Amino acid sequence: MTQELAKKYLEDIAVGDKWVSEHYTMTTEEIIAFAKQFDPQVFHLDTEAAKETFFAGLAASGWHTSGITMRLMVASIPIASGLIGAGGQISWSRPTRPGDTLQVVSEVIAVKPSRSKPDRGIVTVQIDTLNQHGEAVQNFTCNMVAFRRESKIA
Amino acid sequence: MTQELAKKYLEDIAVGDKWVSEHYTMTTEEIIAFAKQFDPQVFHLDTEAAKETFFAGLAASGWHTSGITMRLMVASIPIASGLIGAGGQISWSRPTRPGDTLQVVSEVIAVKPSRSKPDRGIVTVQIDTLNQHGEAVQNFTCNMVAFRRESKIA
Repeated sequence: MTQELAKKYLEDIAVGDKWVSEHYTMTTEEIIAFAKQFDPQVFHLDTEAAKETFFAGLAASGWHTSGITMRLMVASIPIASGLIGAGGQISWSRPTRPGDTLQVVSEVIAVKPSRSKPDRGIVTVQIDTLNQHGEAVQNFTCNMVAFRRESKIA
Repeated sequence: MTQELAKKYLEDIAVGDKWVSEHYTMTTEEIIAFAKQFDPQVFHLDTEAAKETFFAGLAASGWHTSGITMRLMVASIPIASGLIGAGGQISWSRPTRPGDTLQVVSEVIAVKPSRSKPDRGIVTVQIDTLNQHGEAVQNFTCNMVAFRRESKIA
């Protein structure tokens, strides 16, 4: 959870709010271990054989980039009830490579109180995962549930 | 990779093609281990404490559901050059719970040859991850790159 961050309830969150995460460096070993478990394809598993593929070298599974992004989000986005994603639009514009250092920049682009459930709303956050060159490896526009201070959740 | 499946190139894939995966059962231990690594929030980490949260009990991280979905996709979707996702629209309509048995049903909903790169195209696949009650835990509309037989990839 995000104990070290000032907890924000729905009414504290506004369009334009921006949060920047710490950094995380991906290793070859982690990329291969993740791929074995969740995405066993040659371009994620084998440094040599990956050279002959579309990726022209070892690339992390997009879902591994998503997992690291989530880890960085959890420590940087201070929504009081936690990060509860309903879904969104995701794209992987370039692969994450061994040794890449990732950072997540999140910005609120919409805040929509629920009509049917007055204790909560949907916060839409643009979540960009950047490598050490400032290039996006993932863009995720995520709808998250956030609660009002007086709700019984969180 | 998908050696056991008949490999399909762009020209072999048509709207309406459908693939059904094997099953995968999620355990409490896996849910907690994934959360520790990628999504350390109380509703994914602690069976007891999760009861007091939005999820009213331990729930897998949505990204864990995505990872298991990918694993089932890799073994069931026979695109010749592998599964190379450009991105798409994802939603988690209900949580995956400990003991849930997941299965992935994938259906091609669009096939679009590239105008600029004649050796490839984009295949859009509706990927539904269902639990043992036939309820969707994840819906993912995914754009994947597929190559023609004569391309140099795959």
